[in-house]
Amino acid sequence: MQQPSASAAHEGEQSRYREALAAQLGAFLDRRRADMENVSPDVAPLMEAITGLVSGGKRLRALLSYWGWRGAGGGELAPQTVATGVALELFQAAALIHDDIIDRSDTRRGAPSVHRRFAQLHEGSGWTLDGERFGHAAAILTGDLCLSFSEEAFTEIGEAAGAGTPARRIFNTMRAEVMAGQYLDILEEVAGPVRSPESAVSRARTVIRFKSAKYSTEHPLGIGGALAGADDETLAGYARFSLPLGEAFQLRDDVLGVFGDPLTTGKPAGDDLREGKRTMLVALALGAAGEAGRQELARGLGNPGLELDDVDRLRAVIADSGALAQTEELIDRLAHQAAEALDRLGLDPLVHGALTALGRAAVRRTA
Amino acid sequence: MQQPSASAAHEGEQSRYREALAAQLGAFLDRRRADMENVSPDVAPLMEAITGLVSGGKRLRALLSYWGWRGAGGGELAPQTVATGVALELFQAAALIHDDIIDRSDTRRGAPSVHRRFAQLHEGSGWTLDGERFGHAAAILTGDLCLSFSEEAFTEIGEAAGAGTPARRIFNTMRAEVMAGQYLDILEEVAGPVRSPESAVSRARTVIRFKSAKYSTEHPLGIGGALAGADDETLAGYARFSLPLGEAFQLRDDVLGVFGDPLTTGKPAGDDLREGKRTMLVALALGAAGEAGRQELARGLGNPGLELDDVDRLRAVIADSGALAQTEELIDRLAHQAAEALDRLGLDPLVHGALTALGRAAVRRTA
Repeated sequence: MQQPSASAAHEGEQSRYREALAAQLGAFLDRRRADMENVSPDVAPLMEAITGLVSGGKRLRALLSYWGWRGAGGGELAPQTVATGVALELFQAAALIHDDIIDRSDTRRGAPSVHRRFAQLHEGSGWTLDGERFGHAAAILTGDLCLSFSEEAFTEIGEAAGAGTPARRIFNTMRAEVMAGQYLDILEEVAGPVRSPESAVSRARTVIRFKSAKYSTEHPLGIGGALAGADDETLAGYARFSLPLGEAFQLRDDVLGVFGDPLTTGKPAGDDLREGKRTMLVALALGAAGEAGRQELARGLGNPGLELDDVDRLRAVIADSGALAQTEELIDRLAHQAAEALDRLGLDPLVHGALTALGRAAVRRTA
Repeated sequence: MQQPSASAAHEGEQSRYREALAAQLGAFLDRRRADMENVSPDVAPLMEAITGLVSGGKRLRALLSYWGWRGAGGGELAPQTVATGVALELFQAAALIHDDIIDRSDTRRGAPSVHRRFAQLHEGSGWTLDGERFGHAAAILTGDLCLSFSEEAFTEIGEAAGAGTPARRIFNTMRAEVMAGQYLDILEEVAGPVRSPESAVSRARTVIRFKSAKYSTEHPLGIGGALAGADDETLAGYARFSLPLGEAFQLRDDVLGVFGDPLTTGKPAGDDLREGKRTMLVALALGAAGEAGRQELARGLGNPGLELDDVDRLRAVIADSGALAQTEELIDRLAHQAAEALDRLGLDPLVHGALTALGRAAVRRTA
């Protein structure tokens, strides 16, 4: 018999982790569903919305926390790694529910977003008053419920994630920073046009760092490491890998938000332009485009009525300015920096292989 | 020298608790403000909004948790009671922030609600795009941040509120139930008119129980008791007091929402009518009013354009139907039931006096 390669080995273990995570997410939500049923059967749609959301997705944060744990010497498929994954996936679901309200996104992974689901429930049930408004209100509450569930799951880890532990400290920091980062993101949409153009790129980078890089990669990896008892030096080494990786991950997201194919992203073409997102890509284009291009871009940003033609023209402005190439270059540079930092960590080949593959998928994805 | 009366004694202790609570809330938020400043000075308005909200209010939930602790033998002004109060006050602030978005309430305690504060910031800063929309988005994020802070504060209690403890179990139940109750509340606004009128009063009672009675009185008292090691029998006795009290508290709220004086409530007159809230008071009125009155009430409910004249006419329909008197009677009966259950608990006179006074204030208030 042949020895499995390191890559096959991490894939097998990762599949088993994914299965354990899905099973525990299911069991967790089943218990809460029973509690909610006791309040009233009418509450079922909140649970269905949450269950639907956590059944999909890349599981990036859960997987990073798992390999962060394994890289710091934690044992294979330990229960606390599954509980951590449950907490991170529920947190991400809560963030997506509120994010879609904030961004007025009607779709999520090709299906109706949660506020749309509730608006459709309203419509289909022949209820009175305003269905859109009901949808928003119900989605705010569903996100709050999901946020509470995330916390419950994290607490279930027990003493290792109790008051004053490194894992709890990172979890707390993660929550506060992502909310601050999201606020800076929406602030830039409205305040960006009247703020100094010279610092637009640096402001966009701050948003990327807090809204995404720290939240999606640095902190999940750190929580896993901290649970396994990693010291500060190891955690700092983790961050040297995960922070550039997370930045590259978000820059890829920004490119997909403008140039992505709706068939793979599950979002309308040019969604970020309609939304008025002042991403790094957009900040670079505003700095580098000629006067005519800049004005066209500034006019189009945040216009919910942009048609496909308009999106195509704005895409051309961004590409012609050189901002697209510059962003792709930056993604490459950051991914390279992350890979080098990963090599320097001297991890077990299995963990190294898993993190390399996760990093590659995060940066090269099309959805 | 005279001995202080039991009433003066509980007032002195309660004031000292209030002071400790305010100090610890301030210290907690100061630490988080420093963390947020490190992300960006632009995040300051989120912290200001939270700080503003928790500086006011009746502190009903924190005080109930304190006397629940004392009634179960907990020591005077113990640190964990203050941490519990911090967590409950922050949770209530988070709930109010999101509630005001859901209800489109522009004022809270006579000042602009959080989404209005952000809309005003937008207006005053000369930012672009839609200020209302920015206000809602920023308030969703501020509520999420505040919800996370609440959890951080509760975890800081330590092992006594760790995984699997009775206090943690009640805290988790409280969060999930209030969100379920709030959903049933908004559901009734849209679905009530097309659902069976026969069960309208019972549906309204379910909303009261979960949105308010369990959240505002039963669970805070229970958390305090559980932290002090109260057994299930004691907690069941607490609930026999706090559940009817909480229902009376919410019924008072319903009456104030229709008949309250804007000068004392800090809310526009008849706010609940404009909002379309299907409270017990309204359910009773719809059941008891004549055909003309019922139609007028049904037409007016949920109409944001109601003028003062319209509110006055709807008030008359509700009063003439007998629903107001019936509700006041129910409040009296529940308050009486609560007082009897309190007596049966055989608590220390100091705690008995404190809970009697809190109960009276909750039911007789004008704001």
